[in-house]
Amino acid sequence: MDRQGKVSGVEQAIRSYYEEAQVAERLVEAVLYSVNAGGKRIRPLFFLEMVEALGQTLTQAHFQVAASVEMIHTGSLIHDDLPAMDNDDYRRGRLTNHKQFDEATAILAGDSLFLDPFGLIARADFPAEIRINLVQELSDSSGTYGMVAGQTLDMMSEGKLIDLESLQTIHANKTGKLLTFSFVAAGLVAEVSTDVLTKLRQVGELVGLAFQVRDDILDLTADFEDLGKTPQKDLLAEKSTYPALLGLVESQQFLNHTLDQVQNLLKEIAEKCPFQAKQVGQLIESLRLNG
Amino acid sequence: MDRQGKVSGVEQAIRSYYEEAQVAERLVEAVLYSVNAGGKRIRPLFFLEMVEALGQTLTQAHFQVAASVEMIHTGSLIHDDLPAMDNDDYRRGRLTNHKQFDEATAILAGDSLFLDPFGLIARADFPAEIRINLVQELSDSSGTYGMVAGQTLDMMSEGKLIDLESLQTIHANKTGKLLTFSFVAAGLVAEVSTDVLTKLRQVGELVGLAFQVRDDILDLTADFEDLGKTPQKDLLAEKSTYPALLGLVESQQFLNHTLDQVQNLLKEIAEKCPFQAKQVGQLIESLRLNG
Repeated sequence: MDRQGKVSGVEQAIRSYYEEAQVAERLVEAVLYSVNAGGKRIRPLFFLEMVEALGQTLTQAHFQVAASVEMIHTGSLIHDDLPAMDNDDYRRGRLTNHKQFDEATAILAGDSLFLDPFGLIARADFPAEIRINLVQELSDSSGTYGMVAGQTLDMMSEGKLIDLESLQTIHANKTGKLLTFSFVAAGLVAEVSTDVLTKLRQVGELVGLAFQVRDDILDLTADFEDLGKTPQKDLLAEKSTYPALLGLVESQQFLNHTLDQVQNLLKEIAEKCPFQAKQVGQLIESLRLNG
Repeated sequence: MDRQGKVSGVEQAIRSYYEEAQVAERLVEAVLYSVNAGGKRIRPLFFLEMVEALGQTLTQAHFQVAASVEMIHTGSLIHDDLPAMDNDDYRRGRLTNHKQFDEATAILAGDSLFLDPFGLIARADFPAEIRINLVQELSDSSGTYGMVAGQTLDMMSEGKLIDLESLQTIHANKTGKLLTFSFVAAGLVAEVSTDVLTKLRQVGELVGLAFQVRDDILDLTADFEDLGKTPQKDLLAEKSTYPALLGLVESQQFLNHTLDQVQNLLKEIAEKCPFQAKQVGQLIESLRLNG
């Protein structure tokens, strides 16, 4: 299936979930406002590309799992934008959720997007053992041992000088864990060996790292139109970033080196199980920035 | 097991979950601040009493499920207290989470308490099919089709005159769904028949209703010391309440009538499966208020 078909399938899976008899229309409106804001859908895409690379034909159940990780990601963006957090007025060129609605609604829309995905996975047509493994992985990736912890560390580091190790801990959790879910979840669904699952987790962690370095570079070099949000916000917020700690050129080299490591790991996986690396390899390559 | 043993077991199950190697200490500190604030633990208690009534001996797995519903309830209290929501400074006689820490931390602590419980259930020592049913029920009870929807409707109704039907829809979702989880979850764990499961759901809905009527009455009649929070907040916030719509005496009668219905349903359940109603019946009776 091509990339556009996958993106449509994910968006449809999310919308279907919210098409049931609605209890609070405004809540669903706010949830879908942020879901429909677009974005690259990189987490669901990585999951779906990996599932196909591992030899499975995509079904509705795969799209539901892909939707679940996108929902949690979207919920985290809504909460990150709140006045008490990053206080952003724009996201992807549109008003942020609390600017379009109000703060209370934005808090609740984020809450929904954290609570609903587990019910969506529970309904996916996979064996119960696989579904419960996915639930555990998604919960671990997003809560106190994952994304939310990373966001907390990030908030606490604002205005402070932190070292590279602390920066990596922040991003390994804030961005890395949920991206890693996409790769591990594909392995869980395809029922790969423990060995392959470990390599998939490493791929996810490296892709997460690449992603954050890339984001930091773009924040420094892109303008509003490219970025869809206020650029150089990190600089203004005195946030520690890779370019600030490593320099811009070195950050670009670090990004490319990380992506090389990912490609090597994909080759190792292909030696251990039936694996078609082409499409997912292309998606990885698309993350390169040639300064 | 006596009630104090049950409460201790639930609190221990929550604390154990947060004893792993911590990523963000401040986050766990904020989470446990609100978990340790006490409260009646009524949701876990109803679950555990029902499990025993249905003939099961309590194990760690039961305490983990009991903990999961208390975690979501606690997360909802943290978010409800936020300035953009109910703007409460005190909860159970202590500073609310955002007053003790800060708004960003309180938002993130609530997020954690929404995301973590699903990982906790996934680890409970029950068959995968039971665990996934519990996950689905907890997600449905708490997200867009449950608690969060109710809270949204509640926010939207502030300062407005609403009728009894709208008030019941709000509370059936805001308070009712999560209380209902306790009863349905006990049935899922004990693998009762569909018929009994339906009756357990009805019991949960009625207990949820009773709970809200009781809360509204207490808000009007209790003082700060009894309530642990500012009394008559509903009145000040121009919230529609049962006493406002039905009158105080009628609300008390409505509460008692609802509890009678619950006791009748428990008798019907006891006719259909092995069921020891005594302890759970006492817990129900403790909700009566004799004006």
